[in-house]
Amino acid sequence: MPERARRGIAECRRIASMSEESNRTTRGFLTPPVRQVHALLHERMEALGMKVSVDAAGNLRGQWQPPNATGKRLGNKRLILGSHIDTVPNAGAFDGVLGVTLALECVEIAKELKLPLPIEIIAFSEEEGVRFGVPFIGSRAAAGRFDPALLNLRDADGVTLEDAIRTFGLDPGEIDEAVIDAHALGFLEIHIEQGPVLEAEGLQVAVVTAILGQSRHTLTWTGHNNHAGTTPMRLRRDALAGAAEWIVAVEALAQHTEGLVATVGHVDVEPNAGNVIAGAVHVSLDVRHADDAVRKSAAEALLAQAEAIAARRSLVLQCARRMDQPAVPMDERLTASLAEAIKAVGSPVKRMPSGAGHDAMVMAARVPTAMLFVRSPGGLSHHPDETVGEEDVAAALEVVCKFLKRLAAEVR
Amino acid sequence: MPERARRGIAECRRIASMSEESNRTTRGFLTPPVRQVHALLHERMEALGMKVSVDAAGNLRGQWQPPNATGKRLGNKRLILGSHIDTVPNAGAFDGVLGVTLALECVEIAKELKLPLPIEIIAFSEEEGVRFGVPFIGSRAAAGRFDPALLNLRDADGVTLEDAIRTFGLDPGEIDEAVIDAHALGFLEIHIEQGPVLEAEGLQVAVVTAILGQSRHTLTWTGHNNHAGTTPMRLRRDALAGAAEWIVAVEALAQHTEGLVATVGHVDVEPNAGNVIAGAVHVSLDVRHADDAVRKSAAEALLAQAEAIAARRSLVLQCARRMDQPAVPMDERLTASLAEAIKAVGSPVKRMPSGAGHDAMVMAARVPTAMLFVRSPGGLSHHPDETVGEEDVAAALEVVCKFLKRLAAEVR
Repeated sequence: MPERARRGIAECRRIASMSEESNRTTRGFLTPPVRQVHALLHERMEALGMKVSVDAAGNLRGQWQPPNATGKRLGNKRLILGSHIDTVPNAGAFDGVLGVTLALECVEIAKELKLPLPIEIIAFSEEEGVRFGVPFIGSRAAAGRFDPALLNLRDADGVTLEDAIRTFGLDPGEIDEAVIDAHALGFLEIHIEQGPVLEAEGLQVAVVTAILGQSRHTLTWTGHNNHAGTTPMRLRRDALAGAAEWIVAVEALAQHTEGLVATVGHVDVEPNAGNVIAGAVHVSLDVRHADDAVRKSAAEALLAQAEAIAARRSLVLQCARRMDQPAVPMDERLTASLAEAIKAVGSPVKRMPSGAGHDAMVMAARVPTAMLFVRSPGGLSHHPDETVGEEDVAAALEVVCKFLKRLAAEVR
Repeated sequence: MPERARRGIAECRRIASMSEESNRTTRGFLTPPVRQVHALLHERMEALGMKVSVDAAGNLRGQWQPPNATGKRLGNKRLILGSHIDTVPNAGAFDGVLGVTLALECVEIAKELKLPLPIEIIAFSEEEGVRFGVPFIGSRAAAGRFDPALLNLRDADGVTLEDAIRTFGLDPGEIDEAVIDAHALGFLEIHIEQGPVLEAEGLQVAVVTAILGQSRHTLTWTGHNNHAGTTPMRLRRDALAGAAEWIVAVEALAQHTEGLVATVGHVDVEPNAGNVIAGAVHVSLDVRHADDAVRKSAAEALLAQAEAIAARRSLVLQCARRMDQPAVPMDERLTASLAEAIKAVGSPVKRMPSGAGHDAMVMAARVPTAMLFVRSPGGLSHHPDETVGEEDVAAALEVVCKFLKRLAAEVR
C-alpha cells in the first residue's frame, strides 16, 4: 500500500496545481481548471477500463465492472466511492480530492484482487459552496435533492448556475438523470479529518458515526455608546461587556456537555474605538452535536442565558436563527463493516462524528453511506499547508481494501 | 441670566453652522470655517471694547480692561476665560464653543457690574486632535508646551501643521510669543460635562477637581484558528474566549475600585468568521483615575490577570503601552473659590474629576486653572444631538458671576 498511498498523494498535489489562480489552489464549481482535473481523472479511469461520463451537475463519474470470469452477470449492484474536486480559495491539496484519488487506487486494488464488486467513482463537482454561496451542488444532484430553483443562483460575476453548467457543455435540463439508481449498494467517502482529534489521540483513521447537526444564530447586543472617560461604571450600558460575559458562558456550557461544540467566532463592535464604550455588538453562535435534542436544548439554554445577561445589564438583545440543520447518522451496517475492517488491519477502532459537512451527509439521504477519516496533521485544513501522512493514507487504503473484500463477499 | 444663557446658546448654534461640511458640523484646526468663527468672535469682542489678536498657534485672543474709573492702573493681572473652537467630525454645537460664548457673556457681566478685573478670552484653535492626530495644539502654545517638532505633522491631505498655520496667514516662527505671561491670575474653562453624572444626580453644574490620568494599552491574544465543527472544546486555543474572560475581569475590577473607569472599546477578531475559532484577537484597554497610583496599580493588575488567563489557556499574549498620562489636579484655591460661588447661588456643591482631557489640563501647567462643568443632557457629546439646558447655562453664568466678583475683590 505505501506505493499506492504515494501515488494517491502525488495525484492530489498534481491536481492542486490546476487552479484559477497561479501559485495557489482555488478551484470553484466548473471553472476552467476543472476541465484539467476531469481530463486527468478521465485518463486514469479509462486506463482502468472504466466507463466515464459527466452528469448534468458536472460530476465526473466512472463505472468499473469486474471482468466477468464466472460468466455470471454482476449487474449494477455497485459500491460508490468518491468525494469532491472543488476547493475553497487558497486551499490545500487534500480536502475532497484525496477521496477521489484514493477511489482510483481502490479500483486498482479491486482489479488486482479480482473482487467481484462493481465500483462507481464520483468526483463531485461542488461541495464547498464558494462560487454560488450554496454547498453540495454535486451531491445534491446525485442524491436527488437538487432544487431546480438553485439554477438561478448567481456567482460574483453575475453568471447563473444554469449558465455555468451550459458553458461547461452540459445540459441543466438533464440534472434529474444524475440521480443515483436503486442498484447502488452504498457510498463510501474517504476524507481528511479537518480536525485535531486523531492527531491528539495518536490514531491514523476513524470511522465516522454521524455528521453533526448544526445551529447558527446571530445576536445583537445593544447598549449605549458613551465616553470611556466621563461615564462612571455604574452608569454604563456596555454592550461588549455583556457579550463578553456570554461568550465565556458559551464556552463553559460546551465544555460541560459531552460531544458539544459551541463557538463564537465573529464579533463586530460599534463604534469600535478604544475610548468609547461599545454601543452595539454583533456576535455569531455556532452550536453542533450528533444528537439533535442535545444541540437544540444547548442552543436554547445559551440564548436564554444571553437574555438573562442582557436583562440584568439593561441591554437590548436581538437574536436571529441562521441555520438549524439536523444531524445525519451514517449507515449502521456499512459503518459497522468499516469498523470491522479497521479492527482487521490491527488498528484501534476510533468512532467519531464529523463536525464539518460532507458530500456523505447529502448522499446519506439516497444510499447507505459510510465515511472514513484520515488524520489531518496539525488539524489543518482550508489552508495551503493542509497535508496528510503517507503512512496514514496507506493505513486508510488497507482498511478500505478489507472493507471492499467484506462487501464483495456479502454481495456474491 | 436667562437672557444671557439664551444668547450664549444661540451663538453656539450659529457657530455650529460654520463647518467644513454642509448639513453637519465639522471644523478642524484652521480650516476655512474657522475664519468665519474668528470674524464673529472678533466682532463681538470689539463691540465689548476688547483688544483682539490671533496668536501664531491660531488662538483668537481678546483683552478686556475695565474702565479706569479710579485712575488706578490695573495692569495685566487678568483672569483668562475660554475653551476651544475646533470640533470632531459631525459634532454637536457646545463642546468647547460654549466655553467661548459664555466667556463673552462674562465680559458683558464684568462690564455691567464694573468689576475691576481684567479678563482675557482665548478661543483655542485646536483641542480635539482630529486634523493632525495630536490634541491641544492651541493650549500647548499658550501654556508654553508646544514642541516645534509638531510643525512637521501632516494632515490627511499631506499638509503640514506649519503649512496650515502659514496658509491661515500666521507665522509659525512666532509660536513662542503665544505663551501666557506671568501676569495671568488664572484660567477658568466652562465646558459641558460630556458625561451622564450630573444628569443622574439631578445637578446643573459641578466644579472639576482634576483631569483623570489615563493609561492605554493594546493587547493581542494569539491562539489557533481551527474549524468550529471539527475541533473539540478540549483541543481549542480560542483567542476570543480568552479575551472575553478578561474583558469581564476588566469591568469587575473597575466596578470594585472607587473612581476607576476601565474600558475595552475596541475588538478585532481574526479571521472573524462564525465557523472558525478565533486565532487572534486585538483589544484595547483604557484605564483612568484621579490618583495616578490607583490607576497604575489597576492597569498592572489587569495586565497580570491577562497574563494569567492567557497562560491557563495556552494563548500567547502581547501587550503594548500606548499612553501613560498623569492626572492633572485643578488649582486648589481657584477650585475652592468656584465651589464657594456655587454655594453662594444656593446650589449643592458637586465636586468631580473630568474623565476627558480638556485645554484646562494643559493650561494647568502654566497658570492656576479651574473648570466648571455644565450638565450634558443624556450625557451626549461628540454627536449632533449634543445639547445643553438653558437653565443650566444660566446657573453656570450665575456661578461664574459670583466667582468673578470674589476674584475682583481679592485682586483689588
